[in-house]
Amino acid sequence: MTVRLDAYMQEKKAWIDRQLPLFLQDRTIPGKLKESMLYSLTAGGKRIRPILLFAALDTLGKEEDLGLSTAVALEMIHTYSLIHDDLPAMDNDDLRRGKPTNHKMFGEATAILAGDGLLTVAFQIVASDPILDGEVRSRLVALLAGAAGPEGMVGGQEDDLEAEEKTLTLGQLMSVHGRKTGRLVRFPLEAAAVIAGATEQQTHSLTGYADHLGLAFQIGDDILDITGNEDELGKPVGSDLDNHKNTYVSLLKLEGAKRKMADHVDHAVGFLRESGFENGLLAQIAEFVLNRTF
Amino acid sequence: MTVRLDAYMQEKKAWIDRQLPLFLQDRTIPGKLKESMLYSLTAGGKRIRPILLFAALDTLGKEEDLGLSTAVALEMIHTYSLIHDDLPAMDNDDLRRGKPTNHKMFGEATAILAGDGLLTVAFQIVASDPILDGEVRSRLVALLAGAAGPEGMVGGQEDDLEAEEKTLTLGQLMSVHGRKTGRLVRFPLEAAAVIAGATEQQTHSLTGYADHLGLAFQIGDDILDITGNEDELGKPVGSDLDNHKNTYVSLLKLEGAKRKMADHVDHAVGFLRESGFENGLLAQIAEFVLNRTF
Repeated sequence: MTVRLDAYMQEKKAWIDRQLPLFLQDRTIPGKLKESMLYSLTAGGKRIRPILLFAALDTLGKEEDLGLSTAVALEMIHTYSLIHDDLPAMDNDDLRRGKPTNHKMFGEATAILAGDGLLTVAFQIVASDPILDGEVRSRLVALLAGAAGPEGMVGGQEDDLEAEEKTLTLGQLMSVHGRKTGRLVRFPLEAAAVIAGATEQQTHSLTGYADHLGLAFQIGDDILDITGNEDELGKPVGSDLDNHKNTYVSLLKLEGAKRKMADHVDHAVGFLRESGFENGLLAQIAEFVLNRTF
Repeated sequence: MTVRLDAYMQEKKAWIDRQLPLFLQDRTIPGKLKESMLYSLTAGGKRIRPILLFAALDTLGKEEDLGLSTAVALEMIHTYSLIHDDLPAMDNDDLRRGKPTNHKMFGEATAILAGDGLLTVAFQIVASDPILDGEVRSRLVALLAGAAGPEGMVGGQEDDLEAEEKTLTLGQLMSVHGRKTGRLVRFPLEAAAVIAGATEQQTHSLTGYADHLGLAFQIGDDILDITGNEDELGKPVGSDLDNHKNTYVSLLKLEGAKRKMADHVDHAVGFLRESGFENGLLAQIAEFVLNRTF
């Protein structure tokens, strides 16, 4: 990771960390519900999706402020998906980033509502963003809902449930991940293109980049589950193995998975090159994904 | 209920019943998830919220087609709220309209995802409605999210959880219902005003009408829980009493609740009168709410 990207990521993470609670603060929400929404929203995380949105706007020569509301909404939707995913009926996790999960802190009923609330407020924030025009806001809502909904992330979560007892092929695993995590990594690039009024060629480069980056990122998660450091990751190492999950490492072995991750990073940068974006932040983010340790 | 309203309600209910599955049909959604979304969406119901939207558009002299996507989205959000409300961690209901609840049919995990999916698709449908312009679509998404979210319905559900062990005052009960059910009854009137480009005076009449109608409707639900017919209602009579729920009947006795319902219907029609709407469908719907048996 170059010095410039490191500083950029830290600065943007700090910015989004500061902004997230501000977007809930003035709303009249029952005390415990608000507390539980804020608890998960401010629990940290890499904020990689907002950073991708800001970096793409920068790449397209636009102010990052134009994407703030959309980035906040996106992170709210990512957070809701983690809250619902951790529920007893789903993955039944007690810990998330080293802290008790939402339902462990606030009870299942409030955790369900906190997720529902974050999902709903996310669309409200994009739809009422005062600095974008109505046509752009509508397109962003439609794209975000498409990425997060039953054709995207929610559909991928259902796929994941149904895959639990089966051994997937590589193609099936890629399809599950394309929905479950890929669509919400694609969205910040699509959103930047819509906000900036990008050309078709630029949009094609950015979304092609996103699709490969999302796969590389997921493969990296599977690798880190084996090779990572528990303190850096904030979760136990080897849990995928213990849970007999379908992962790239279980299908391809460690070396094969590393090769496949590097391939996808190469392809991601190849898409950037098509629009002359290969020397900017987005290429550096791809390199970061290749080498990350958390 | 006059003959005209009866026919109108039947016709619009049939229309929305036909349209609801069409808005999911062509989407690529995992089989079981799609089935579970459709199961609850097509389980029937009075479709009172879409009917209010169509009747308000008619009152404002506009084509009802202009509100179809919004009405479908609204009914999807109403349906999602019922699926999540019925979950074991929430009300833990096994039956809804005489049929097994969603989680009884498809399991808890898929039921949670079906609710999440319907909520998300609802915003996608409004945001990509091809017959409304971008500014109108954005305003509708913002209003719908405000009504459904933590400041509206989701907040009311949290209030309701917290009220379970307490005896509420009349003011507190009205405040819980205002959020939990009132905001989503107000929305179709607000939406019609936005779609039709209504004047401020007309909007004031329609939303004032909606607020009183919503309260009358909720009081009616509490009354029917005591006086209703199980076959017509599709649920056991007296369950509120058995569950020690805070209701208008428990606070005001049966006669007091009936008087209060009639008061709210009077006020609702009073608001219509301010804009000369007192002889149309909306006034007839208020009368229907006063006299309904299901």
